[in-house]
Amino acid sequence: MRDPRREPSGDRPAPKAAVGRVSLYLRQLETFQRQGATTISSSQLGAPLAINDAQVRKDLAFFGQFGYPGIGYRIDELSAALRRILGIDRDWPLALVGLGNLGRALLKYRGFRNRGFHVVALFDNDPHKVGHAYDGMVVRSTEAMAESIRALNISMAVLSVPADAAQRVADHLVAAGVLGIFNFAPMPLVVPPSVSVIAVDLSVQLEHLAYKIQAAQGGISFVG
Amino acid sequence: MRDPRREPSGDRPAPKAAVGRVSLYLRQLETFQRQGATTISSSQLGAPLAINDAQVRKDLAFFGQFGYPGIGYRIDELSAALRRILGIDRDWPLALVGLGNLGRALLKYRGFRNRGFHVVALFDNDPHKVGHAYDGMVVRSTEAMAESIRALNISMAVLSVPADAAQRVADHLVAAGVLGIFNFAPMPLVVPPSVSVIAVDLSVQLEHLAYKIQAAQGGISFVG
Repeated sequence: MRDPRREPSGDRPAPKAAVGRVSLYLRQLETFQRQGATTISSSQLGAPLAINDAQVRKDLAFFGQFGYPGIGYRIDELSAALRRILGIDRDWPLALVGLGNLGRALLKYRGFRNRGFHVVALFDNDPHKVGHAYDGMVVRSTEAMAESIRALNISMAVLSVPADAAQRVADHLVAAGVLGIFNFAPMPLVVPPSVSVIAVDLSVQLEHLAYKIQAAQGGISFVG
Repeated sequence: MRDPRREPSGDRPAPKAAVGRVSLYLRQLETFQRQGATTISSSQLGAPLAINDAQVRKDLAFFGQFGYPGIGYRIDELSAALRRILGIDRDWPLALVGLGNLGRALLKYRGFRNRGFHVVALFDNDPHKVGHAYDGMVVRSTEAMAESIRALNISMAVLSVPADAAQRVADHLVAAGVLGIFNFAPMPLVVPPSVSVIAVDLSVQLEHLAYKIQAAQGGISFVG
């Protein structure tokens, strides 16, 4: 990059959609890298993702100035920069709370491990699960959460507990020093401003699909 | 609503975030309804969701004019309208393709059933899974997909297959007449414009959480 000292974002957070696209750009850069490419243009980067070159340039410009005139982007340099921007130039140890069906599926989800996210501690309040091992890790009681989270220096937790338990568990996680919660419980969490939450409400997203199908089938009628 | 013939959206699709908020408004309306309320103001509706009243009014105005001066919203009327808007005033039979850990977790995810989404057919190409029953349904071979999807009049499919199989399976689903795909494979799908896709890339969302934690911890440095 031409001016590595530029820090364009400051304390202004990037739009959610732009950060999501940065993740996709990074995956695409890694694909090109595996194919032996060393430089790439914004239109080459966007094409496989169906994102136009103006959008690619706009998204990247939010985070810095990465292109070289007449060359485009240097793939290794841009990949490294995007990993730093996303905060995945390091490993993130995760706590997983709630070993129901979804929790157990998330534990085996390879997409996390491949990106530096490693579940290192499991918690549940079901006495039938506490003490049992999943994926080589023993499930601990949620009572023991604060101690383990501090001992393992965990700053990120995946929350896959029922809706009515979510806020209580989140409070414990925050008290234990967790800085980010990946929330699968269908319930908005109240946390201090220093704590980040990404909510994955699958039924909301499925409703959005229903909306899109219906809209594509001829729009919405308010009559009747 | 004062003018039920108004059709504000036409063929202009609503912003993704607004549709997501409509799902949250509907859940909140249902909660108020269970508590016995019959009317509600935009600020009362937004408060439990940490959404301000101006945003609530703006989101709803995108879809129509629902409020009454001096009254606010009539809860039963607005709930019914939002269900119609989202396309969940009906049941959606779903096909679930890919019975790995994530697929099996999704099959048991109650959040879908409660909103009218019912998995009615299971498909996998693993001979160890075909013929076995999960949740009372026998897994069929992906070879038999087109026939079953047509016979059961399925227009929506949940795709939880590995990335390298996703596009091929999506092509079969589209050929069988599916109009919407809920895609969990970490791979953008290419489909005709008449087919809708919602992609749930969990690792992209976890990267966004890493970004937010890092940004909250004092911003991003491009130096070093």
